[in-house]
Amino acid sequence: MTHPQPIAWRGDCLRILDQTRLPAAVEYVDARSAADVADAIRRLAVRGAPLIGIAAAYALALEARNGADVRAAAAELVATRPTAVNLRWAVDRVLAAWDGDPARAEAEAARIHREQIEADERIGRFGADLIVANATVLTHCNAGGLATGGIGTALGVIKTAHVGGKLVRALVDETRPLLQGARLTAWELEQAGVPYEVIVDAAAAGIIARGNVQAIVVGADRIAANGDVANKVGTYGLALAAAAHSVPFYVAAPLSTIDVATPTGAGVGIEERDDAEVLAFAGKSIAPDGSAARNPAFDVTPAALVTAIITERGVLRPPYGASIAASMKQAVAAS
Amino acid sequence: MTHPQPIAWRGDCLRILDQTRLPAAVEYVDARSAADVADAIRRLAVRGAPLIGIAAAYALALEARNGADVRAAAAELVATRPTAVNLRWAVDRVLAAWDGDPARAEAEAARIHREQIEADERIGRFGADLIVANATVLTHCNAGGLATGGIGTALGVIKTAHVGGKLVRALVDETRPLLQGARLTAWELEQAGVPYEVIVDAAAAGIIARGNVQAIVVGADRIAANGDVANKVGTYGLALAAAAHSVPFYVAAPLSTIDVATPTGAGVGIEERDDAEVLAFAGKSIAPDGSAARNPAFDVTPAALVTAIITERGVLRPPYGASIAASMKQAVAAS
Repeated sequence: MTHPQPIAWRGDCLRILDQTRLPAAVEYVDARSAADVADAIRRLAVRGAPLIGIAAAYALALEARNGADVRAAAAELVATRPTAVNLRWAVDRVLAAWDGDPARAEAEAARIHREQIEADERIGRFGADLIVANATVLTHCNAGGLATGGIGTALGVIKTAHVGGKLVRALVDETRPLLQGARLTAWELEQAGVPYEVIVDAAAAGIIARGNVQAIVVGADRIAANGDVANKVGTYGLALAAAAHSVPFYVAAPLSTIDVATPTGAGVGIEERDDAEVLAFAGKSIAPDGSAARNPAFDVTPAALVTAIITERGVLRPPYGASIAASMKQAVAAS
Repeated sequence: MTHPQPIAWRGDCLRILDQTRLPAAVEYVDARSAADVADAIRRLAVRGAPLIGIAAAYALALEARNGADVRAAAAELVATRPTAVNLRWAVDRVLAAWDGDPARAEAEAARIHREQIEADERIGRFGADLIVANATVLTHCNAGGLATGGIGTALGVIKTAHVGGKLVRALVDETRPLLQGARLTAWELEQAGVPYEVIVDAAAAGIIARGNVQAIVVGADRIAANGDVANKVGTYGLALAAAAHSVPFYVAAPLSTIDVATPTGAGVGIEERDDAEVLAFAGKSIAPDGSAARNPAFDVTPAALVTAIITERGVLRPPYGASIAASMKQAVAAS
């Protein structure tokens, strides 16, 4: 099984797989400074909250090695994606470890990278245990190694279930408007040798109704203290269809995705992105000139529709207010 | 308010708006024989069950006028889309009226066309009465004049509500994979001066959850005797989201769409179309080479999720077994 290596530390540069070119081309860019990494983050060559954090950590290691201004670079990196919690967290960790010694910065970046790889592996094992034999498992967007640097969260569960012989196939929502499912998840499953079929997002409910899906596993962008899940737009509709047909709906995410400062999903702002993502594709307009669009990037799935949240410290079950609080407490005690 | 004129009878030809070219280009082809019309139906230049029936009726009028073999032409036309019920029904009506006289064939084709236009108007009025003031109404695919030759069924309701001052805007699902929403419905609403916004299909549930939709109106490909509705894939997911948030879910369709020989939606075969429709977007490949897809063209919405069925003979309410049977009986008595 081959996993993507979306970033690779080369000592004098960070080699970055350019995700904007997938699946048409597998191309790498070598970032030799924090400015190069910041540019790659801005143009989405590197994406996925955990992976952005790791890339920024290595960017500071590069900057320390180059004898450049590490604190200025840290500020530039944090500004690239101001809402990504992992980004600031990773930058702060490297700054604290650095202490003027490039070797320490590099070691801390490598540690953050390794921790995420290990978290993915644990999420994969905990999640695969929940998958029944001969399952078709549906996923949305890309919560894969391309977003984490490891085997992925939701895709970590799918890949581990495949290795365990439980998986018939993955069903991959194409995930309009930016097609992270058709472009990135399909590519990643192809690399990993996991059988998959791509579907349009709107086909999922009917396929679930016909009994052809045994589990749904998705990632998360933010999980509120009560277990409400903000994730890529389309996740909520999947959760409704799952509930209507008693199909388990799992969210796979590291504990760092849980924001206890957000009490419920109502407190999560929904980013509205550019109309052009909806109205054009590959530079070609699909709607009449002058059309307007709405383009919410996320939606919120209420905790009541979530069967379980799969974390690197185990599987959280309802009521999530209690299970999340207990898990966060254990994590703090262990760190 | 401008409505599309997807076909126009010119005496010596049937002028057909080429829907495959919309919205990039508004182009017409002049069909001068039944073979020309059959070709236009096959390549989807003319689409929508009612409109295909009307086009086939005019095709026989052309054939009668040309002194050609009308019965052979009828067989060719019926074979173009074997599952379209309206097609066979319209062809049979023209054959029965013809009796060797080209003028009679032409008059019957015009009558079928006029009846559909009138049915759309009635559906529009009955449906608009159901829409509350200041409504945002969501629709899926294209159940418009481009599919009927009139003002449309679901779009007839939206246009009539707009004329009545009730509509804030229409929300238009883009309707992957063939984008009939973004391409055709958006174009038709633009022509009609109805304010609209295009959304990706997966965005609907989250927008409904935030209270921004007051009604959903869709068309139907087939309605079973119990009120189960087969329609473009994605309809079922919309109905689930509507039910979860107590948003009325209306189906607008002529009585000819109801198939009393199909007891429930379980009896409706779901056409699986070519993978290539999913794996490419606007002609460009979006997934890795060798990817597989599933491409169901329709799904089935159970009658329990349908608030009302809007027909040209009035609004049908649950229990649909009884209301459909009564309505069909009245229609037969009136004909």
